[in-house]
Amino acid sequence: MEQHRVEHLAIIGGTHGNELTGAWLLERWRRQGEVVRRPSFQTHVLLGNPKALQQVRRYIDQDLNRSFDRDAVVPERADVATRGDRNYEYDRAIALRGQLETFRVIPDGVLVDLHNTTANMGISLIFVNQSPFNLKLAAWMQKRLPGVRAYCWLDESLPRRSASSVVERGVTIEVGPVANGIVRGDLFWKTEQTVEGVLDFVEEYNAGRVAFDGADEVELFIHERSVDFPRDERERIRGFVHQDLQDRDYLPLEPGAPLFSTLDGETLRYDGPPGLCPVFINEAAYYEKKIAFSLTRRELRRI
Amino acid sequence: MEQHRVEHLAIIGGTHGNELTGAWLLERWRRQGEVVRRPSFQTHVLLGNPKALQQVRRYIDQDLNRSFDRDAVVPERADVATRGDRNYEYDRAIALRGQLETFRVIPDGVLVDLHNTTANMGISLIFVNQSPFNLKLAAWMQKRLPGVRAYCWLDESLPRRSASSVVERGVTIEVGPVANGIVRGDLFWKTEQTVEGVLDFVEEYNAGRVAFDGADEVELFIHERSVDFPRDERERIRGFVHQDLQDRDYLPLEPGAPLFSTLDGETLRYDGPPGLCPVFINEAAYYEKKIAFSLTRRELRRI
Repeated sequence: MEQHRVEHLAIIGGTHGNELTGAWLLERWRRQGEVVRRPSFQTHVLLGNPKALQQVRRYIDQDLNRSFDRDAVVPERADVATRGDRNYEYDRAIALRGQLETFRVIPDGVLVDLHNTTANMGISLIFVNQSPFNLKLAAWMQKRLPGVRAYCWLDESLPRRSASSVVERGVTIEVGPVANGIVRGDLFWKTEQTVEGVLDFVEEYNAGRVAFDGADEVELFIHERSVDFPRDERERIRGFVHQDLQDRDYLPLEPGAPLFSTLDGETLRYDGPPGLCPVFINEAAYYEKKIAFSLTRRELRRI
Repeated sequence: MEQHRVEHLAIIGGTHGNELTGAWLLERWRRQGEVVRRPSFQTHVLLGNPKALQQVRRYIDQDLNRSFDRDAVVPERADVATRGDRNYEYDRAIALRGQLETFRVIPDGVLVDLHNTTANMGISLIFVNQSPFNLKLAAWMQKRLPGVRAYCWLDESLPRRSASSVVERGVTIEVGPVANGIVRGDLFWKTEQTVEGVLDFVEEYNAGRVAFDGADEVELFIHERSVDFPRDERERIRGFVHQDLQDRDYLPLEPGAPLFSTLDGETLRYDGPPGLCPVFINEAAYYEKKIAFSLTRRELRRI
């Protein structure tokens, strides 16, 4: 499978309606199409969630990026009623799947999904499977753009799947820190550079010029588990990310490191094993998912 | 008027439902009341917009911080229907006014309204009038916490007024940069310090120990005008804040300085007079208000 040439590649922007960088890049590429055009394959651009974008909200009924599963109708907000057994994002996921099939990205093209985070994730490539293609992409990108991180989580086990999981060769580009509802110029251009990197990689791959002979290494951050905020007896959050943990994504945690400040002014400290690296520290959208940060294990893998 | 002792002071948090610092500080002070208690006056804490907080949105029907005027029913979102001539924030403004009257903050107490911004505004005190009390507060705070800025805009001329405008002695504390929907530990504690500064000032003021003899100076940034994003013929935004302007709040603009990048990659430059200082650069909530940033004139005033 991995040796297939790539014929079709899709870029989705605006999967979350308050993450503007991807949606605005799509508008840019509509005007300046040559930026995302490459000779050996077709590039398709798709707007993820137009209704949520219009309202500058993450989603209308449920998280679109957890809706790419046919059983994924699970509204996250108690105040939102579903329409029968369907809802807006469920319908969007079906429509997007249909477009990806029409463009022949499904089954064996490449999917790039653009996201922003309030966490200090820099430029992160998120993979939901470790296919040989994905690992090569990660290794190649780390050479081209030093500082690019690769974060691997497996969502095959989750009931509600992300956009990039609909194909084997898929990557989520997660860029931050940036507040919801704004475009930051520096990260806008960095995101474009990253997308151009992915396109150039596919071009090289199609030309048979991507060669790793086992002497190279790719740095991966493998998802271990997520950590919730401290809560009181009524399940309400009673503390926030400690200022000394804020912005330290990907840096190893040592036992005793401060994790949270409580509203009473207490400091809660880390008492797990040394060396795990937190990611998605203080991401706004994860408060409702009960995630203050996630823990990963750093791994260097020969490729 | 200005020589009245202060008997009652109110702190409002959560006026905007996606600015969490104020609301979480209120919860902290409910547990640790002594932080905001002072001997010479009563402190009252009020939650601004509980429904918007629950949904982590700025507002439900219209901006509560532009609703403190009896004619202020002007919904900002086209997709929101008002209920007759009323709406949620209009009702909240009336309810809050009632509470402030009951607590005798209206007419001659002090009001402190807590806000966050995605702009790099640091700790800003925003005044909608330049009463002698307000100017003394600004000068005193600048000595106590170096780096605190005072931004003056006059909203008497606007049809829809801010919360802090309901009394003569009122201040909005605006803290950033922080993304909507999160609490940042460092700015959480800085906001509490700032509130404690205001409370200590009032304590000193009541004791007759606030003396300025004309030899001191207060630094003010006086609002001049706001600047919209570049737009296309259909009024859609066609550019974003230039990366070299981002985060340079309060720093003087020189002619030729880059203001915007367009989606076509063009740079738009400043061609106004030298020395004006931009504020609220790239504030998320102001995209819909057609404000990319505002321009102010820096002024040192003897006090």
